[in-house]
Amino acid sequence: MTGMSDTSSKSVELHKKFQGKLEVNSRIPVKNRADLSVVYTPGVAEPSRVIAQDPKQSFDLTWRGRTVAVVSDGSAVLGLGNIGPEAALPVMEGKSILLKEFGGVDAIPLVINTQDTEEIIRFVRQVAPSFAGINLEDIAAPRCFEVENALQDLGIPVFHDDQHGTAVAVTAALQSAAKVVSKDFTDLKVTILGAGAAGIATAKMLLGIECDSETCTKQSSSDMQVADVILVDSKGIISTDRDDLNSHKSVIARYSNVDGLTGSAEDALRGRDVVIGVSGPNTISPEMVKSMADNAIVFAMANPTPEIMPDVAREAGAAVVATGRSDFANQINNVLVFPGIFRAVIDGRLDRITLEDKQAAVKALADMVTNPGPENIIPDPFTPGLAETVAKAILQNRQSAS
Amino acid sequence: MTGMSDTSSKSVELHKKFQGKLEVNSRIPVKNRADLSVVYTPGVAEPSRVIAQDPKQSFDLTWRGRTVAVVSDGSAVLGLGNIGPEAALPVMEGKSILLKEFGGVDAIPLVINTQDTEEIIRFVRQVAPSFAGINLEDIAAPRCFEVENALQDLGIPVFHDDQHGTAVAVTAALQSAAKVVSKDFTDLKVTILGAGAAGIATAKMLLGIECDSETCTKQSSSDMQVADVILVDSKGIISTDRDDLNSHKSVIARYSNVDGLTGSAEDALRGRDVVIGVSGPNTISPEMVKSMADNAIVFAMANPTPEIMPDVAREAGAAVVATGRSDFANQINNVLVFPGIFRAVIDGRLDRITLEDKQAAVKALADMVTNPGPENIIPDPFTPGLAETVAKAILQNRQSAS
Repeated sequence: MTGMSDTSSKSVELHKKFQGKLEVNSRIPVKNRADLSVVYTPGVAEPSRVIAQDPKQSFDLTWRGRTVAVVSDGSAVLGLGNIGPEAALPVMEGKSILLKEFGGVDAIPLVINTQDTEEIIRFVRQVAPSFAGINLEDIAAPRCFEVENALQDLGIPVFHDDQHGTAVAVTAALQSAAKVVSKDFTDLKVTILGAGAAGIATAKMLLGIECDSETCTKQSSSDMQVADVILVDSKGIISTDRDDLNSHKSVIARYSNVDGLTGSAEDALRGRDVVIGVSGPNTISPEMVKSMADNAIVFAMANPTPEIMPDVAREAGAAVVATGRSDFANQINNVLVFPGIFRAVIDGRLDRITLEDKQAAVKALADMVTNPGPENIIPDPFTPGLAETVAKAILQNRQSAS
Repeated sequence: MTGMSDTSSKSVELHKKFQGKLEVNSRIPVKNRADLSVVYTPGVAEPSRVIAQDPKQSFDLTWRGRTVAVVSDGSAVLGLGNIGPEAALPVMEGKSILLKEFGGVDAIPLVINTQDTEEIIRFVRQVAPSFAGINLEDIAAPRCFEVENALQDLGIPVFHDDQHGTAVAVTAALQSAAKVVSKDFTDLKVTILGAGAAGIATAKMLLGIECDSETCTKQSSSDMQVADVILVDSKGIISTDRDDLNSHKSVIARYSNVDGLTGSAEDALRGRDVVIGVSGPNTISPEMVKSMADNAIVFAMANPTPEIMPDVAREAGAAVVATGRSDFANQINNVLVFPGIFRAVIDGRLDRITLEDKQAAVKALADMVTNPGPENIIPDPFTPGLAETVAKAILQNRQSAS
């Protein structure tokens, strides 16, 4: 254990002391035979009969209506990669307690022993009657897109947080950052380094598109769309010229990179207003930042080591810098997003999360930053009522749209 | 809602008021960024790394080591039949809170949207890394046998409570009842009405056999085995002469019914010491009880209406009568069993539940009845420390056997 940070060793110690982080409790006491006959046989037969007549009543008469599952195959765990289901469990348990502590949503972790796309889809279909929603987590791309797309007809929302949580948090922070540098959000030219789950989802959000593996639908132009997005993967700039793209990159190539640029990450940053790193450590050099437009915005989200350290980016001319880390200003963390999203799922009994819902969440988060500045572009996740504010914004937006 | 009993209407009301019975809570507070960095990123990476090196550590570093799943396809719900997963959820949630309240075991209900044997097996295999054990519940026979048999190599126990919980509780009660009527347990001739999950499992327990679909292994003779068991299904007495038996009935026919009797339920009760009804309402007449041996023992377990009402059975000559109902003396309920079994699973980190474990549970329950009498053959489920006593008996029995 030598070389472990304080946080790491404290984390192991606490996990061992409490034997994990979650526990299940009864909301109804069972102290005598009368209690037993109400919560279990014979009394429980009556709620079961009511639900047998109308399965939707399961949301009112059981914990289903307020409970979601956090499902992972352990194939793409934050900073650790494909570590399998058992090793992913501490992360999923953590996600579950954050849903409860921040959003008031009951959540349980389900780590599963398959990394086959069709089997994951089948698993979620099978377990769906137990829950009000499914949070997919730490599933590798492109499998994560395929699983999520295939499950949108399930009747309860299936939401891959690594995609949409990140996309919403990044977009909200970018709205504030644009104000700080006095640029119009809709004029921004954005480059995204990393074309995994988070990179592709953020590109879609900034372009106002929703895609399956074959095609995208584009929202009518709105104040939520930037001027252009370039995506960069390990082979370079994604464009329609590339013949080595999977279907998910291929489809987005047709909607991004309006000038048809080709080349390296260096080429992709030249003259751009914004770079969003969702790739890996030290992939942005000071020279790359210097090549960007004036008042550049740099979001270096790789954890724990960002694409470029904040002080280095600022020295190279960046006007606003954000990371995923809690020890720097402007931490962009999807704990700002998923508790509010699932609070809305529970309160509104939603059957899916739409692009409009995510945009309402973006606006709510951006609006909470009343006085944007270079070190103040995103709310503190411990802001009281934050998740409720996000949830209300989603549900009010639905009401005004209907 | 007219005609509903008080218990039924109170149950619906309470289920609606509390929106079910379970809730999930955090054992570690998350009040600030320091907490967040320990329970979630970046600190959580270290427990994940430890588990990636040694997946068994998931039992110590997550809630896995103290948590089980209650899995049902909703195909054979108590007294209600095949009502599907949503309608089964109140029962599974009830089971989960009883595991917590009686056994101190965290449990969560998973109702699943398939009634295909192979799919249920696959589902349980996939979800296994999340749990320390699996309680199968309310799955129809013979599927329940096939699912359970196929999963005994899983590495965590897979325990179908409708079979074994009932078998253990019935056998414990029968040991006390034998003392009451001054007969040797090993001399008893037993007839079981009903050859579903509970009937077949009880027969196996009383015969000291463990079976798959093709063969059984018989324990060396012990004080836990009765002299003979006859099983009766809807077509009559189960014997090797029958050519209409499924494989599970067929295999047990070779170990039961030593005299090769054929005929009806009436024929099956004549001269017997014990009848155990796990069939349906009003299937035992006073004349059938009269035809039994002197000092007959009648367990009429059908719920809510037993095979014969206790007063009628006693009037017809039964010396000891038990039912599944809480409003009569001698309630035989598997809440006496499963919390202690799963407490042992957690405390002993067991990888399966054996016949010897179940026999240890039987002895522990029977020993708790210090003064057996016609209306005192089984402990009260609210006896303080009952589940712990059962768990300790199982673990001590394993220690002394090893």
